[in-house]
Amino acid sequence: MITLSSDFGSPYPAAMKGVISQWTDARLIDVSHDLPRQDLRQSAFWLRETLPYFPPAVHLAVIDPGVGTDRDAVVIRAGGHALVGPDNGVLLPAARALGGESVEIFRVETRDETAEGTDRTHWPPRLASSTFHGRDVFAPTAARVHEIGTDGLDDDDAFTRHDGYESLRFPEPVVSESAATGTILAVDDFGNAISNVPASFVDGAFGGAIQVNDETAPLARSYAHVEAGQRLVTVGSHGNLELAVNQGRGTDAFGLDAGDDVHFALGSRS
Amino acid sequence: MITLSSDFGSPYPAAMKGVISQWTDARLIDVSHDLPRQDLRQSAFWLRETLPYFPPAVHLAVIDPGVGTDRDAVVIRAGGHALVGPDNGVLLPAARALGGESVEIFRVETRDETAEGTDRTHWPPRLASSTFHGRDVFAPTAARVHEIGTDGLDDDDAFTRHDGYESLRFPEPVVSESAATGTILAVDDFGNAISNVPASFVDGAFGGAIQVNDETAPLARSYAHVEAGQRLVTVGSHGNLELAVNQGRGTDAFGLDAGDDVHFALGSRS
Amino acid sequence: MITLSSDFGSPYPAAMKGVISQWTDARLIDVSHDLPRQDLRQSAFWLRETLPYFPPAVHLAVIDPGVGTDRDAVVIRAGGHALVGPDNGVLLPAARALGGESVEIFRVETRDETAEGTDRTHWPPRLASSTFHGRDVFAPTAARVHEIGTDGLDDDDAFTRHDGYESLRFPEPVVSESAATGTILAVDDFGNAISNVPASFVDGAFGGAIQVNDETAPLARSYAHVEAGQRLVTVGSHGNLELAVNQGRGTDAFGLDAGDDVHFALGSRS
Repeated sequence: MITLSSDFGSPYPAAMKGVISQWTDARLIDVSHDLPRQDLRQSAFWLRETLPYFPPAVHLAVIDPGVGTDRDAVVIRAGGHALVGPDNGVLLPAARALGGESVEIFRVETRDETAEGTDRTHWPPRLASSTFHGRDVFAPTAARVHEIGTDGLDDDDAFTRHDGYESLRFPEPVVSESAATGTILAVDDFGNAISNVPASFVDGAFGGAIQVNDETAPLARSYAHVEAGQRLVTVGSHGNLELAVNQGRGTDAFGLDAGDDVHFALGSRS
Repeated sequence: MITLSSDFGSPYPAAMKGVISQWTDARLIDVSHDLPRQDLRQSAFWLRETLPYFPPAVHLAVIDPGVGTDRDAVVIRAGGHALVGPDNGVLLPAARALGGESVEIFRVETRDETAEGTDRTHWPPRLASSTFHGRDVFAPTAARVHEIGTDGLDDDDAFTRHDGYESLRFPEPVVSESAATGTILAVDDFGNAISNVPASFVDGAFGGAIQVNDETAPLARSYAHVEAGQRLVTVGSHGNLELAVNQGRGTDAFGLDAGDDVHFALGSRS
Repeated sequence: MITLSSDFGSPYPAAMKGVISQWTDARLIDVSHDLPRQDLRQSAFWLRETLPYFPPAVHLAVIDPGVGTDRDAVVIRAGGHALVGPDNGVLLPAARALGGESVEIFRVETRDETAEGTDRTHWPPRLASSTFHGRDVFAPTAARVHEIGTDGLDDDDAFTRHDGYESLRFPEPVVSESAATGTILAVDDFGNAISNVPASFVDGAFGGAIQVNDETAPLARSYAHVEAGQRLVTVGSHGNLELAVNQGRGTDAFGLDAGDDVHFALGSRS
């Protein structure tokens, strides 16, 4: 199985699927091609929250604002999975979620050719363009890794151990018994603003209230526990505090977007 | 085959595909993840108009504004198909289209656990979150139903007959020989406003005119039978009268949206 | 393998997938269902730039503003591939890219029936609606062609050689050593405005400047060779000059959209 993720929209992902299909008839499953455009941190969040639900697979993920510069192409081996994409950190949180801190990172050799024509099944991949490495580098690499398996990374000269890779870590919240300061990591398509403050902070105290910056909101088990149009704080499916509006958009109601800081406070617990 | 429908946008559907892929390598076909958000009636319309074109399959469909409340999870057996989703009525019109009035409805047992970690292949499903039952309940249920087949619903203790289910029916039009009063059931991505007034009302009288509320419009066999930018009434692919603009948006031109009433009148027929 | 392309958005493509699945369990791969709506030239560009990356396949592509009129349905045999869609020219550039000028075009017979009910596996296809031939004509045709193979087109009475087909050609640029006048063929989802002026015009002279209409912009190997927010001209993955903004939208910055003319001039080359 090969999963595909990108910020490409449409129809560029199809060229990647075509190239892969020239190599292998592996199952292709789209994760998303609408990841937040050229936003490494939000995209890394979504990959981390999504890829671990899959059985072992090759995960192609291309959010690549530095395409055509000297950034490397990498394959990460982690927990039986392989992640393929640019060396800009976007794959790292998902890799750690899949393999813990024992992830292994390989650099992918490429051949710098800009001549006309494409030799699509040649290996290692050639840089047929400087603007679409999803098609020219990452798609053939994902197909190749699927073909040789994660163990095969040790035996293919196109892959070399890579120590100087780019990392990416999410900001850590500061949590005490009655207060927590964190960051909005992402906003989903429903408009829920997802923080990095873990569920343990509220300890299941649904039904009460919680302070969010200068306002107070109900702390509810799920969206429909408040009236339609009312704001709430809940524990989202990512296990973190999430700012929401029942049948509305929390990001708008709370005026908080990805990257913003957020402060939570609880009243005294009896 | 398992089809997937939701109002999730991106990338939440991928977590459902990952979970299903841990159970089965059934073909996964996306119906839509852009169903009208939290709109049960429009979503029910699209499911009814789309799922019957498939061969027998398991249809996972999650439009679930009540997630995390005490609404049930259901599986509906209908005409060799199985539909899996929340007990809020959204599946019923499609189920009736597939199986007539002889649909059979089962309630899905779940285990209320909120501990850390996920035991993804455990059955029956556990409520790992209160906000994403598509991932935690409906995806494993769809995989399970695919595994045991629709006959297996009778033998698995997690499924029990359910009589008190939620239903949903579309409004019925009032049609006489020369006039019809109906409702706009849905607006498609082209902006066509689809009513519930059946084609039989106009009896193939294309080329003439029809009155729509206070205006008159051509009654045309298809969009391009009027000039680009001109409004028309046609019989859409759903078999109902549809308000359109050739290469434009009927919903805007006629000022009618999903849920609005609409009145049609024909001149005398010679 | 059957690929699917359209300007349908959601959920109409799923009805096509359902119909096809009644005929065959061929792999279904979405190319795009967000092709520029009812825009034959831009859609033809994207098909030409995407389909050749696939191995031999049946390509269903429905951009069909004339649905329900007397335009024909066609199958084009080209280089081991088959393209299925309306006879309005939208398939031709991709067909020529796949098969050169030796493309062979067949007209598809249909049966004009508007009775209630659908006999989905009947062949040749019947006109169950006048507004959704993707579902009623092109999907069964794609499934049929997949079943009989491209050689089978010669032996099935539903397919007849078609000489009077609609064509579509892109405008040709006028290129001299120091100046080029072309057209913006398409704007991609990143906002890159893609011209028809070939890379050979700039001959790899990245690092210098280029005049675009009345302005001057850097000529850069890729987007990130200029600062975020800065405009540039590059050679895109289609092999043509492309107007872009690093992490922004070139179409907005340059004020140029699909169909607009564009004039490039180079300084003296040393």
